[in-house]
Amino acid sequence: MKIGLVQFRPELFQVKENVERGINLIKNVNADLFVFPELAFTGYTFNTKNEVEWVSENKNGFSIRAFKDFAISKKTNVVFGFVEKEENLFFNSSILIKSDGSHRIYRKTHLFYEEKLFFENGNTGFWVENVNGVKVGLAICFDWFFPESFRTLSLKGAQIIAHSANLVMPYCQEANKIRSLENKVFIVTSNRWGEEVNVLNSNEFTGMSQITNPKGEVIIRFPKKGDKVKVVEIDPEEALNKKLNKYNNIFDDRKPNFYKER
Amino acid sequence: MKIGLVQFRPELFQVKENVERGINLIKNVNADLFVFPELAFTGYTFNTKNEVEWVSENKNGFSIRAFKDFAISKKTNVVFGFVEKEENLFFNSSILIKSDGSHRIYRKTHLFYEEKLFFENGNTGFWVENVNGVKVGLAICFDWFFPESFRTLSLKGAQIIAHSANLVMPYCQEANKIRSLENKVFIVTSNRWGEEVNVLNSNEFTGMSQITNPKGEVIIRFPKKGDKVKVVEIDPEEALNKKLNKYNNIFDDRKPNFYKER
Repeated sequence: MKIGLVQFRPELFQVKENVERGINLIKNVNADLFVFPELAFTGYTFNTKNEVEWVSENKNGFSIRAFKDFAISKKTNVVFGFVEKEENLFFNSSILIKSDGSHRIYRKTHLFYEEKLFFENGNTGFWVENVNGVKVGLAICFDWFFPESFRTLSLKGAQIIAHSANLVMPYCQEANKIRSLENKVFIVTSNRWGEEVNVLNSNEFTGMSQITNPKGEVIIRFPKKGDKVKVVEIDPEEALNKKLNKYNNIFDDRKPNFYKER
Repeated sequence: MKIGLVQFRPELFQVKENVERGINLIKNVNADLFVFPELAFTGYTFNTKNEVEWVSENKNGFSIRAFKDFAISKKTNVVFGFVEKEENLFFNSSILIKSDGSHRIYRKTHLFYEEKLFFENGNTGFWVENVNGVKVGLAICFDWFFPESFRTLSLKGAQIIAHSANLVMPYCQEANKIRSLENKVFIVTSNRWGEEVNVLNSNEFTGMSQITNPKGEVIIRFPKKGDKVKVVEIDPEEALNKKLNKYNNIFDDRKPNFYKER
């Protein structure tokens, strides 16, 4: 399966322009699954709920329609983060758009920092969808911090985790080597890059988008800065094999009776 | 609290000699809690169950009595791994011996590789004990691979995880930075070092015993080789604070309703 790993920096609030730039970035690239960052076309650094509402969309919104057209015409699949509006509530969401134009939405389970001021806690939970016969799950940014996130997706059968991010802490890229290893799963971390200023508020994003494989290896990592797209061919079958060695199968070896969950 | 981090290489099967060497290593060192490796005084590379039985002991065995005498006379606490025999069953166990001469045993939950030929699955589960007013939990080597191990101990209140190890894979020392961070807990990884040969079987252990703190930092790390002991003063109160920033408490932010356990 050909993964189109994207690293991208949107201009805050310029949704239409950002979507156009995003599509231009990948329109001549041949991949089965493109993964864009969290809040890929809205920007991240909000100061008020009005700003959040301004760039929000429902499931018929501008970026979703644009990428559905793209996915159908290019016979490909795309994941990206967006601000989802449902009635008067907002979610930090990520969408999987499939080549037949269907979609499924994941709402971020673990909100980070001031996101709690603007977004509701995600209520979709973690799910896994078939994409060209491969099981793909979605996660967003800070979800990585909680080992239960990728564990849950992996136990549900995910072979590839499309991890859309706007990372500001320095840990995730190294940590995801362990997250991939402990679940024997591919993790595609599409991160944004650069600084974003909104009046007195600002964020510096860490770039270094990457793919880690079930052996815990980084098979591609972008630099800290720059819009990028690169296609990496992976074998999702590798993620079906949970054997670490002749004696250890890391899922069969789990002992849930001894695990405390709350 | 003063942690006595030990790195040690026993001579295979020479239990009495190894215990003497172990006690000599720490007898002039002032610490509140010493942590020794997994199977600290027996060696690790077994070829037959007879060999395992030969070095096994029950709760009144030689190494336990020796370290109880030591703990009582020095008013200190000691953790080390040993081969535990119960009737005709053997466990890869670790013992916490307290300064009053009491003890509690942890039996390794996740057996690694050929350990499955000789040892029963641990049936104690993960527990936490008060040591000088600080909550201490035990784990053994490969337990680290399963994020549920240290998560369980931390949710049960562990401030310090005494992680006795005979590590042969290259991942754990870096991974435990993340394990410490994701649980905001101290992890004391006491590892053995050097090569051990038993006829056609051999193991190379990785040394680099270390302590990681709730910020995910390595505060001490030994070299790959050499018997070592060093005292590191830590503040266990740090592990009671699960706040990552103004908005995120990493335990309160967990969403167990969305986690799949089996």
